[in-house]
Amino acid sequence: MIKNITNVRGIKCWGAHSGVKSLRRDLAIIYSEVPASAGAVFTQNKVQAEPVKLSKKHMKNGRIQAIVVNAGNANACTGEAGYEGAQAMARTTGEMLGIDEKLVLVASTGLIGKPFPTDEVVEGLRENLPKISSKSSAGSFAANAILTTDTFPKEGFLEFEMEGYEINIAGIAKGSGMIFPNMATMLAFIVTDVAIQPKLLQLTVKEVVDNSFNMITVDGDTSTNDMVAVLANGLAGNDKLKSRNDPGYQLFRDKLEEMMVHLAKLIVSDGEGASKFVQYEVVNAADAKTAKKLVRSISDSTLVKTAMFGRDPNWGRIVCAAGNAGVKFDYTKVDLYLGDENEQIKVLEQGTPLDFDRNYMKKLLRKSHIFVKMDLKNGNSGAVGWGTDMTTDYVIFNSVYTT
Amino acid sequence: MIKNITNVRGIKCWGAHSGVKSLRRDLAIIYSEVPASAGAVFTQNKVQAEPVKLSKKHMKNGRIQAIVVNAGNANACTGEAGYEGAQAMARTTGEMLGIDEKLVLVASTGLIGKPFPTDEVVEGLRENLPKISSKSSAGSFAANAILTTDTFPKEGFLEFEMEGYEINIAGIAKGSGMIFPNMATMLAFIVTDVAIQPKLLQLTVKEVVDNSFNMITVDGDTSTNDMVAVLANGLAGNDKLKSRNDPGYQLFRDKLEEMMVHLAKLIVSDGEGASKFVQYEVVNAADAKTAKKLVRSISDSTLVKTAMFGRDPNWGRIVCAAGNAGVKFDYTKVDLYLGDENEQIKVLEQGTPLDFDRNYMKKLLRKSHIFVKMDLKNGNSGAVGWGTDMTTDYVIFNSVYTT
Repeated sequence: MIKNITNVRGIKCWGAHSGVKSLRRDLAIIYSEVPASAGAVFTQNKVQAEPVKLSKKHMKNGRIQAIVVNAGNANACTGEAGYEGAQAMARTTGEMLGIDEKLVLVASTGLIGKPFPTDEVVEGLRENLPKISSKSSAGSFAANAILTTDTFPKEGFLEFEMEGYEINIAGIAKGSGMIFPNMATMLAFIVTDVAIQPKLLQLTVKEVVDNSFNMITVDGDTSTNDMVAVLANGLAGNDKLKSRNDPGYQLFRDKLEEMMVHLAKLIVSDGEGASKFVQYEVVNAADAKTAKKLVRSISDSTLVKTAMFGRDPNWGRIVCAAGNAGVKFDYTKVDLYLGDENEQIKVLEQGTPLDFDRNYMKKLLRKSHIFVKMDLKNGNSGAVGWGTDMTTDYVIFNSVYTT
Repeated sequence: MIKNITNVRGIKCWGAHSGVKSLRRDLAIIYSEVPASAGAVFTQNKVQAEPVKLSKKHMKNGRIQAIVVNAGNANACTGEAGYEGAQAMARTTGEMLGIDEKLVLVASTGLIGKPFPTDEVVEGLRENLPKISSKSSAGSFAANAILTTDTFPKEGFLEFEMEGYEINIAGIAKGSGMIFPNMATMLAFIVTDVAIQPKLLQLTVKEVVDNSFNMITVDGDTSTNDMVAVLANGLAGNDKLKSRNDPGYQLFRDKLEEMMVHLAKLIVSDGEGASKFVQYEVVNAADAKTAKKLVRSISDSTLVKTAMFGRDPNWGRIVCAAGNAGVKFDYTKVDLYLGDENEQIKVLEQGTPLDFDRNYMKKLLRKSHIFVKMDLKNGNSGAVGWGTDMTTDYVIFNSVYTT
């Protein structure tokens, strides 16, 4: 049996078909037997979906006990009626589970700008909230019910010992890309039984998201609905983590990052129309911010992405994309490596092109996993990010009118 | 006879084949009989080509008398030898024309990271500098000699009366896109016989470039070699423009903008692998900066570009890209229009989707020129920008290994 979110103490869930999508499960429920500390980050897009607006309010106390997610309709650009729909989801969930509706986080993904089918979704919740269960299959149903154009569900589970306590962390995610007129909504919900203060959890989530979900790119656009939330219900029984200096905190943080990076990479692996998974690493930067901006600028460049599709060791585009990152670095110090996950060949040394065996390089670049490493030789900080290539399939997929 | 840069008083030029490119003209010379006031803007990329570094120094006095441009080798990432090559181009030009080498602006476009063929280019200059001429054909030769992957030369000429004086403005440009491992270098050289102070010209050029060349996008990346330079040699005999309040200044500025917008649109029209020319307009914004950022974010979005290719009226992607522009606007006030250059249909009113005839809309979007207009209803400022769609041809073109 593969472990999933149901293997975290006190977590029950369900995934069902409410009818908003014609054939697939489209309604997910995650519930914790006790109120949990919660940390969450939301889309930076100035146009925000209605459930994002509501969930931000519900996050104010840092306590959440249930998450409900519908797929098929993003409830974005839907005005007051849409906001009332999101409220109805929280209210129904609260009533049925006997908890305060403010302890309910609401998320949506799907088409933008279509009236929100409140009645259908509320009906679906009424029918399915009683079915929540801690069976492994219920976790799989939830993981499937949040998908849109994803080709596979994204799940993760890990356990570790922290100061004598067994801690579990598990999560589900969706991503993939976007389909008209919806954007590539990225959702991730992570549950853990560690005991941690809400404020510390919120800070931790923000930092760890910056190293994981914020370091991936498929389209370069941020959707109106993006949300990453972590619930920590404390049922592991450890001494509550209250400060960064508490024993075990750093270990928990590392494990949470491991989970988020795992889910983030799964999202990239399922990028719409992508044929390659590309890891970008910048090492020996003056500071982490510089390294991150370089990784993002390179991985987001259309010219770099098309070159990856063409198995083209064109370091010129990588260097140019780095130059457009808006950060300072000394180009005459830069070493650049290209290859697959096992072997990377130096193509640039101190900013000067090196001769390399182009036929051998093309063999490496034919692999499905490509690695790009830039050494700035200017400090001790670094960053890693992940992206896809850009293919003709991507363009066709994204140009088709689908409604 | 079509007028070109040779129809500006005192301008001579030439375009020749020096041998750096195998078949096409690859060396352009523009010369003014008298030293000219000069204004120029250079790439914002942190990795800058050697001729950019040299030309920035030569611009310090605001006086330029000759521009030499080679195509086929970008002289970027070429180290000290490359810088010496750029210096040799200026020195040779100065010697042959009998002017200070600091009055020479040098530009390059072509492959990045290949050793610069200084001897070949200097030899080409020695052979061709004596051939400069004010014949119209010489202007065409120059316009052709700066091209790389462009499919047609980009030229413009306009004349107008200013305070009783006849003023001429003409220019040549190149752009198109990029080809491995070179980037989409954009070069534009404009000459005019107006008399204007160097400082005022520099300020004017910067502002006008922001409304023209900085409002176009094909790839979203800025190359290591981008350069726009304007020479004003004063041979029209007008009272020298010294301040924004001088009679005629605003007219000159408008005409310079007309020329730059003309050349910028030609560059977009020749975007690599593009099938459509798209104009993006934001009106009634609180300020011009907000409007410009919105136009750039929308026109640069891969998702918007692929939708344009698919003739897909997906306002959701346009709104989402606007939301990612990093500026504030009230989505619930926004009206959005889509269509061809003659007719745009309102698809969104006060942020609420409108019903429209999708079949008729698809007919409009089948045209080669598409117009997108966003009304923020929040002020009196606006911005216009131009971009292309993203096609399967674009991906194929940019993924092919060409060396």
